[in-house]
Amino acid sequence: MTQVKDHFMKMRPINLKNVKLDDAFWNPWQKLVKEAIIPYQWDALNDRIPGAEPSRTIQNFEIAAGKSSGTHYGMVFQDSDLYKWMETVAYSLANQRDEKWEKIFDDVVALIEEAQENDGYLNTYFSVNHPDQKWTNLKNDHELYCAGHLIEAAVAYYEATGKKRIIDVVSRLVDHIQTVLGDKQGKKRGYPGHPEIELALMKLYKVTGESKYMNLCQFFIEERGKRNPVHYYDLELEDRGGPKRSDDREYDYYQAHLPVREQKTVEGHAVRATYLYSGMIDLASELQDDELLEVCKTLWENTVNKRMYVTGGIGSSAHEERFTVDYDLPNDRAYTETCAAIALIMWAHRMVQVEGDSQYTDVLERALYNGALSGISLDGKGYFYVNPLEVWPHTANYRHDMKTVKPTRQQWFGCACCPPNIARLLASLGQYIYSANESEIYVHLFIGGETSFSIDSEEVQLTQTSNYPWDGEVQFTVSLKNATTFMFATRIPGWCKQAAITVNGEKVSYQVEKGYAKINRKWKDGDQIQLRLDMPVEVVRAHPEVRENAGKVALQRGPLVYCIEEVDNGRNLHAIQLPASQTFDVLFDETLLNGVSAIHGKAVKTDLSKIENSLYATDSYPEKDIKIKAIPYYAWCNRGENEMMVWIREK
Amino acid sequence: MTQVKDHFMKMRPINLKNVKLDDAFWNPWQKLVKEAIIPYQWDALNDRIPGAEPSRTIQNFEIAAGKSSGTHYGMVFQDSDLYKWMETVAYSLANQRDEKWEKIFDDVVALIEEAQENDGYLNTYFSVNHPDQKWTNLKNDHELYCAGHLIEAAVAYYEATGKKRIIDVVSRLVDHIQTVLGDKQGKKRGYPGHPEIELALMKLYKVTGESKYMNLCQFFIEERGKRNPVHYYDLELEDRGGPKRSDDREYDYYQAHLPVREQKTVEGHAVRATYLYSGMIDLASELQDDELLEVCKTLWENTVNKRMYVTGGIGSSAHEERFTVDYDLPNDRAYTETCAAIALIMWAHRMVQVEGDSQYTDVLERALYNGALSGISLDGKGYFYVNPLEVWPHTANYRHDMKTVKPTRQQWFGCACCPPNIARLLASLGQYIYSANESEIYVHLFIGGETSFSIDSEEVQLTQTSNYPWDGEVQFTVSLKNATTFMFATRIPGWCKQAAITVNGEKVSYQVEKGYAKINRKWKDGDQIQLRLDMPVEVVRAHPEVRENAGKVALQRGPLVYCIEEVDNGRNLHAIQLPASQTFDVLFDETLLNGVSAIHGKAVKTDLSKIENSLYATDSYPEKDIKIKAIPYYAWCNRGENEMMVWIREK
Repeated sequence: MTQVKDHFMKMRPINLKNVKLDDAFWNPWQKLVKEAIIPYQWDALNDRIPGAEPSRTIQNFEIAAGKSSGTHYGMVFQDSDLYKWMETVAYSLANQRDEKWEKIFDDVVALIEEAQENDGYLNTYFSVNHPDQKWTNLKNDHELYCAGHLIEAAVAYYEATGKKRIIDVVSRLVDHIQTVLGDKQGKKRGYPGHPEIELALMKLYKVTGESKYMNLCQFFIEERGKRNPVHYYDLELEDRGGPKRSDDREYDYYQAHLPVREQKTVEGHAVRATYLYSGMIDLASELQDDELLEVCKTLWENTVNKRMYVTGGIGSSAHEERFTVDYDLPNDRAYTETCAAIALIMWAHRMVQVEGDSQYTDVLERALYNGALSGISLDGKGYFYVNPLEVWPHTANYRHDMKTVKPTRQQWFGCACCPPNIARLLASLGQYIYSANESEIYVHLFIGGETSFSIDSEEVQLTQTSNYPWDGEVQFTVSLKNATTFMFATRIPGWCKQAAITVNGEKVSYQVEKGYAKINRKWKDGDQIQLRLDMPVEVVRAHPEVRENAGKVALQRGPLVYCIEEVDNGRNLHAIQLPASQTFDVLFDETLLNGVSAIHGKAVKTDLSKIENSLYATDSYPEKDIKIKAIPYYAWCNRGENEMMVWIREK
Repeated sequence: MTQVKDHFMKMRPINLKNVKLDDAFWNPWQKLVKEAIIPYQWDALNDRIPGAEPSRTIQNFEIAAGKSSGTHYGMVFQDSDLYKWMETVAYSLANQRDEKWEKIFDDVVALIEEAQENDGYLNTYFSVNHPDQKWTNLKNDHELYCAGHLIEAAVAYYEATGKKRIIDVVSRLVDHIQTVLGDKQGKKRGYPGHPEIELALMKLYKVTGESKYMNLCQFFIEERGKRNPVHYYDLELEDRGGPKRSDDREYDYYQAHLPVREQKTVEGHAVRATYLYSGMIDLASELQDDELLEVCKTLWENTVNKRMYVTGGIGSSAHEERFTVDYDLPNDRAYTETCAAIALIMWAHRMVQVEGDSQYTDVLERALYNGALSGISLDGKGYFYVNPLEVWPHTANYRHDMKTVKPTRQQWFGCACCPPNIARLLASLGQYIYSANESEIYVHLFIGGETSFSIDSEEVQLTQTSNYPWDGEVQFTVSLKNATTFMFATRIPGWCKQAAITVNGEKVSYQVEKGYAKINRKWKDGDQIQLRLDMPVEVVRAHPEVRENAGKVALQRGPLVYCIEEVDNGRNLHAIQLPASQTFDVLFDETLLNGVSAIHGKAVKTDLSKIENSLYATDSYPEKDIKIKAIPYYAWCNRGENEMMVWIREK
């Protein structure tokens, strides 16, 4: 590698194995992943959940392995449900080894090995149902997408356990892919309709050191959207003998409307887009490619300044699960797929490593505590695929143009991408908290626990404790043998208007660079750093071009976006108006929604008891003073079907 | 007929031939119908409009008549486009005979005669393409719907010209229908999936006096939604040998979910529903059927108190062009088909004859001046099928869930039901203005011109002059030979809070009954009645359950609902807030939109020039004072694609 440019590779995430969580907010979720979600989803993959939609995922592998008979059931990407679950298990094992689940995992690896064909090909849909159609429809058929998820699971399991058998499976698979696809004579110049393998190949490259994986990633990224002179998706269509499939979309759905270096706006399917951009920033970082980095930054700015919900949700259209146009962010028809919020977290996590700028972490935290976490119920057994910011069951249950909005959480989905995706996010949470380099440690998120890292061969242990996100007092304790100089950098969140830091009880001077407060000193064992982040209730307004939020405000406190629910505030939430200038009360209620701080305030509401039948009138409607109670958005719809609203009319 | 119950048949509309319009507002529209729309639509039916979607309607008849070869093109109800155009021509001829168009009409009748089969069957789609499938799918195939429109055209032409040839065509057709459908042994107990023939049969009954037509109407209405014990739509499905067609809907789409006497809410396809209810009230009135009248009133109340836009538009869902649930009235995804507003006018017109209550006329007027008239451009050459109350082209052109919302008017439609429907409404406008009975004359609408009627064998002529809807001064002049006593009843519109009446310049005492001011006296020749309706700008609010309009107001003046357009008020209309308490200026501008009174007022708007890039912020946004200019809703989108909004945020 050539000399490191100073604007690249500022830091690397501290590996999951070196981060132990111990946090009042997140412990229950991690416990849920281990004790409820992993077993529940394993049952789902084995079709042992009464009343849930069929999965048949394990059965598909058994058929492919010749251990069972029948045809493949489900989506063309059904295999990936297993792979995402495996990745979750792997992260969970990195957190804490567990003999039982390791055994199950190894059995699954053995099953996958058996389902893999002799030439390395691996995809149960095609092996079982359409062996003659392999690699003929990269645009729609998800073979590379599934491979990507298996690679991610393999890398995670290898890192957690050191076991290499699954790495061998994916090596054979990728070697096979390279016999079919690539820029060499006689190969297809194809790339995935659903990006994912790009970022997975970068992981495989990093863990194996084999540049062939990065090269394949690079090929997929650079080939995307090119005309040579014919677009690859038209070439393969012609090879299949057309006609065009009825579900074919425009190129922009696949982010293949232009070569990626010419793209300036985020387009198409939101998950595909953000997986692609994650792979792009990985590649840009590794190659120190300034131009590709600039592309990523331009796409990022378009996302967060024009096309992102306040919850960190992205993709405002149910049709094609996609981005639409700038500032088009309807609340009641928000699509904001759980997977898309997770993908945004993944992209943000990569951007901050390169840029060292907390604007990325701010978005990561926003999506994590709101738009992603809302995708799972407090008991881990109910999911949202779609995360609207406003729901009226009365209408959502009836209107066809709201049919993707579910007012109750679902057990499982025919297209079950989201439940395992949120599980793997929760299980891998540790990797998002810290980064380090030769001389610096960065704190991105305020999640209690321990981490360890090396500075000048000195092992440093850092313990973080806090009651976050319920208050903004965070304490760090340094443990090390020999006093060592390094830079301690902690993020000052964008939502925080006033912060203070003391070391061992004394005020210290520090400078804030790109949102990180940095203290460079010789740290000695037992040093304590106290971070105080002021965390009042904030009244948030959306840019005036967001037509759906004109005249409305949202409540936010710390990283949490709040919502009001019918169960607390009565029906017809639209009749409520909230004065922005007031002192809100924040009360932690341990009996409410597994323990949350609710926001209590004053509001007025149209007095429905005094309204006549008439649909239109020239009189003003009577109002009454009410109290409102807002709960964190992530916890909505854990008390049955009811109205919910994030953006409230301002009085 | 048995003794007339006093709550039935209060009045009958004065026939079109006895009403001559002479009105500054409506003259141009009537001229447009005669000079532009009728020729334009005739060209469209003959496929002579460059760039417009194909019609092939005349060609279909020529093929059916054996005068041309080929297959039928277009919708299964394509014939009705011709029939609605014919009805328009007939009304136009009732207004003023015209040799050229009478000749064309007669030629069309001859062509239809030739297309009619020997047994009376008439429908070019089935005659040409599927002769074996006649009457096998009443649920979806529109044969009775087309017959209904031909009957309406026939009655209108007969009334206009006295020519009976077309009545013979429809008599043969209805006789044929009665050989196939009915409650007699061996006949199918079927009824139309798209109601329309019911009201048409009542017209045919009234003009011919033959009760067999009313009886068939009664059969269709009473049979609807029954289980005998099997629902007819399932029976005919079974006869066709299933399987269920993919476009099959639930019964409520067809208003066939329950026997009509058990229906309490307006459901399903809005045009089908209101055509059915029009037929039901015709039948209830003729049979003096109290129960059926009550059903109509219950359905009416549900419509106007729960499911109608302020423009008189109905049907809030593009999916299935249907009613949804109470208070679900989104502005940006309003469907509010032009045909549905017209059908509401037809239903209201029938209700007021029976009930003598101006609440029906108020809705009729609301739909006429707003949601129906908005369906046609000022030059008569551009149409809206869908009439939203809010349009942002930026989003509507992009979002899939707004794909039916067109930000520009269309030349013609593949499903071209609306253009000829609005043409027939405009041509027949005269019939909606007055009603009479033995001793009373009712004025429903304030449209200048003359009418004549008889009281006690005395011919009375009434001349109305006004500048309505631009002001509320209306004058009536009575002409008659011998002074005669009768009740002059004029509607005091629901929108009017203060009205005054003088006769020959002197105040008179009158009582208002069900919204009609009634003056009973011996009228002499030259008597002048002056009606003064106060017509200030009214600020209208929607019932608080209409979630989409919470915190918003609409401007109305007289019968006209107003809107603001981008061309007058700049982009991002959502950034505007309107103080309700202000004195608006109303200025008639003869150069604007063929001459309209615009409403001018003060408002504030978020100052977009001072807004930073950030999507979410905790600061308030700067505002600036602006002037706004509102135009009548019916005239929107006559100055190119631009934003439009009826419901404005209240300051």
